[in-house]
Amino acid sequence: MQWLNFDKLDSYKKLAALKAPELPVALAGEAGAERVAKYQVPMSSGMVYSFAAKQVDDDILAALQGLADEAELTKKYEALYNGEMINTGEKRLVLHQLCRGQLGEPVLADGTDKRLFYVEQQRRAGEFAAKVHAGEITNEKGEKFTTAVQIGIGGSDLGPRALYHALENWARANGCFKMEARFISNVDPDDASAVLATVDLAHSLFIVVSKSGTTLETLTNEAFVKNALIAAGLDPSKHMLAVTSETSPLAGNPDYLDSFYMDDYIGGRYSATSAVGGVILSLAFGADVFAQILEGAAAEDKLARNTDICQNPAMLDALIGVYERNFLGAFATAVLPYSQALIRFPAHLQQLDMESNGKSVNRFAEPVSYRTGPIIFGEPGTNGQHSFYQLLHQGTDIIPLQFVGYKKSQMANDVVIEGSTSQQKLSANVAAQIMAFALGKSSDNPNKFFAGNRPSSIIVGEQLTPASLGALLAHFENKVMFQGFIWNLNSFDQEGVQLGKLLAKKVLAKDTDGALTAFSDLLGIF
Amino acid sequence: MQWLNFDKLDSYKKLAALKAPELPVALAGEAGAERVAKYQVPMSSGMVYSFAAKQVDDDILAALQGLADEAELTKKYEALYNGEMINTGEKRLVLHQLCRGQLGEPVLADGTDKRLFYVEQQRRAGEFAAKVHAGEITNEKGEKFTTAVQIGIGGSDLGPRALYHALENWARANGCFKMEARFISNVDPDDASAVLATVDLAHSLFIVVSKSGTTLETLTNEAFVKNALIAAGLDPSKHMLAVTSETSPLAGNPDYLDSFYMDDYIGGRYSATSAVGGVILSLAFGADVFAQILEGAAAEDKLARNTDICQNPAMLDALIGVYERNFLGAFATAVLPYSQALIRFPAHLQQLDMESNGKSVNRFAEPVSYRTGPIIFGEPGTNGQHSFYQLLHQGTDIIPLQFVGYKKSQMANDVVIEGSTSQQKLSANVAAQIMAFALGKSSDNPNKFFAGNRPSSIIVGEQLTPASLGALLAHFENKVMFQGFIWNLNSFDQEGVQLGKLLAKKVLAKDTDGALTAFSDLLGIF
Repeated sequence: MQWLNFDKLDSYKKLAALKAPELPVALAGEAGAERVAKYQVPMSSGMVYSFAAKQVDDDILAALQGLADEAELTKKYEALYNGEMINTGEKRLVLHQLCRGQLGEPVLADGTDKRLFYVEQQRRAGEFAAKVHAGEITNEKGEKFTTAVQIGIGGSDLGPRALYHALENWARANGCFKMEARFISNVDPDDASAVLATVDLAHSLFIVVSKSGTTLETLTNEAFVKNALIAAGLDPSKHMLAVTSETSPLAGNPDYLDSFYMDDYIGGRYSATSAVGGVILSLAFGADVFAQILEGAAAEDKLARNTDICQNPAMLDALIGVYERNFLGAFATAVLPYSQALIRFPAHLQQLDMESNGKSVNRFAEPVSYRTGPIIFGEPGTNGQHSFYQLLHQGTDIIPLQFVGYKKSQMANDVVIEGSTSQQKLSANVAAQIMAFALGKSSDNPNKFFAGNRPSSIIVGEQLTPASLGALLAHFENKVMFQGFIWNLNSFDQEGVQLGKLLAKKVLAKDTDGALTAFSDLLGIF
Repeated sequence: MQWLNFDKLDSYKKLAALKAPELPVALAGEAGAERVAKYQVPMSSGMVYSFAAKQVDDDILAALQGLADEAELTKKYEALYNGEMINTGEKRLVLHQLCRGQLGEPVLADGTDKRLFYVEQQRRAGEFAAKVHAGEITNEKGEKFTTAVQIGIGGSDLGPRALYHALENWARANGCFKMEARFISNVDPDDASAVLATVDLAHSLFIVVSKSGTTLETLTNEAFVKNALIAAGLDPSKHMLAVTSETSPLAGNPDYLDSFYMDDYIGGRYSATSAVGGVILSLAFGADVFAQILEGAAAEDKLARNTDICQNPAMLDALIGVYERNFLGAFATAVLPYSQALIRFPAHLQQLDMESNGKSVNRFAEPVSYRTGPIIFGEPGTNGQHSFYQLLHQGTDIIPLQFVGYKKSQMANDVVIEGSTSQQKLSANVAAQIMAFALGKSSDNPNKFFAGNRPSSIIVGEQLTPASLGALLAHFENKVMFQGFIWNLNSFDQEGVQLGKLLAKKVLAKDTDGALTAFSDLLGIF
């Protein structure tokens, strides 16, 4: 297996020599309908990845298959899930997929079978949650807990928060809503203050989530919460849990009601299916719902093993994204879920993608000479249509789009206005947008002219359920992983966040000079 | 007054010929501290706009002043607030600044003095809110309303929502929190269902906000809410208000408890300080708080009249942004408020900026040959630091950054950990980030190498209050307006949103063929 820079591959030159099709031509007329039928790939949970509105044709797809083969993408994935040290910078294995299934050989590390370790943590989290729901684990007065508050930042916040919002209403509609979840992340004291001002402290469980047990924001917010509990005459050790690694200062600490574990082989942004997401989601919705998320993710992880790109939606999505980035000049991707429940999913993908592949050196720490990860941003449709879509349609840059849509709503509560339900309107809008972006529209008035040829893909699901959500999450994790393999990056470290941390410590230690002192003064820090 | 394309101006060539300074040099040592002291401009409400970490020097600033003069930016602003037809596409005046003050001559339109009209609507909204708070306007049973729910999308949603979140905790801490506000925007039926499932219908007021009175999403959600009210045995006409134009089908309709008015001279994305924001914010926090927002905005609007760019922060911010966009190759701006209360402010700015200036034709509907509005995205710091900052620091593209920070928190509830408060940590982080991005860091290990020279500005305020929030909002509105003037755009229409609407209607009327039919089938619409 070889780890070569993208521009050293024969496929790089082949792709550069091909001409991308024009979408107003490719999607026109009946041939356009045939293209939609042909250019789609099944995903798990009944979902479909449609790339008919992407600027690819059979020649480009053949070249992308060639790239996948030449870059040995499936072999690298296999090496990853079989426990090779893929995170070269931090010299760590990369095992988040093991939280949802055993894709290959048992992986032994730290003297244990890691799959068994993750399963055991899930079992413990589920059991703990069941006891809370049953009133077997209670507050000091023997009363049931009603709210779970996650204290974490970055990967300990964005993924679990996105998943919670994605399923909150589904759970309410399906009778498995157990407890409200809230989140404290920012070191801004107003974040913790606001949450604490609106929860019932006496009936709240707080989950402190930090792999290292040293994340300053999280420890600060933990202290903030402890103070509030003590001020309310409550015993913090009866209200707080930890999710951390077994070697962290938080592990096995009697100050917590219980502790659940992950390890260094799961990066923060890939940790939503570990105990980082498992504890809060099991508390909110029960262990069964969390298990369904894992099953959905596991099914999608399995698809990612296929070498045929037409049977591997994550890999195909990754390849098309790289083609757009490196040969069509795209510098951003807009993620546009037509589901209000996915309100925070773009923010999670923003971290997942930009923190993984926003890098200028390859996995051997050598500078690369091609563009890597794009900007990721987005908001749910149809809201975005009334906002930034103006620029997407008529701005001076072309931004590739990643739509997500569902056939059914989550709560099955709908209304017919002007002959259609809200769900039909929602879906009609996303279908319309795909075509509007692709085909454009001629007009004598340039102000009403749409150039078109603006590419998009769409993932269509039956309904946003725990399983299809897990599959969606895994799809993007695997897409990012494959893009990292193509760009020859280490997608699993994040050296770029270190310098700011270091300088912030200097400011707090008053160990500054020059402009840093001047900016600190401007901000009135001391 | 001349409306010329940017590249026809002498200043365009002058700027192109100048070389941008290197930040690692400009901000080094004691000269760096002097630069911070020198390169800042006072704003209203005690705020400061600092551009010391932008790639400008005295020569570039002189050229930008030349551009401001040559493009007649202040004259165009004056024309706008004196009632000239600046929105050429829709042939409308542009009068949102009149909501907060009389900047120039009285503007007569529709047979009335528009300033008096807007003030009268504010007075009516404030009076209505006071009666609700006093229990003089109640539900059918004579009980007080406790919750206000805004039903609107785009500009009727993002701005008011951002402002509500920005002040919710401030209001709680300062004893002026009157009613909870909620928002329904998306045509996704789950959006309305979720809000309705968690509000107390019998004690809720619903504000239907649509200037035209024909926004399909909003009318659909209005019907959704009406059904729910009727199903609960409640009389919708006792629970619903309208904010609309006087000529809309919603105006003066007895189905509403009351109606408040705006007009065609205020675009949706500029409407937060009109009745669109005024009704919900007066209900949530009282008319006094809304008046303070307007006063803050008015003060900033006044600064925007100054011809000297060193006394006009919005204009300077606009000019530097154009310089980065057209001469330094920037295609995006990250908006990074170090205040959790500003969680939805980037989403508002995303609409404000991208919908206003994401255009390829000038105000005369002629194609332009330069780049216009950039992508706007962002999340609050320090959260973003644990997420997408990796790409901002070490990615292969340079993204200019717009920081916002405050000296004091809103709730004044804080904790000392490791010798510093959370607020100090928050501010230390933003100061550190500015320097980390600007200076970078050399390292023998390219994985730990930071190239630096990544530009940022920061707006520093004393505290996020109603007045400083109003000023912040106006700053960005005026920045976008000035950039539109420089690019010779009409920043006040949005033709780019029409095509998608048209095609969605076709889908719902089953009037489709080819690929549009195929995508509609894929989404299972019928």
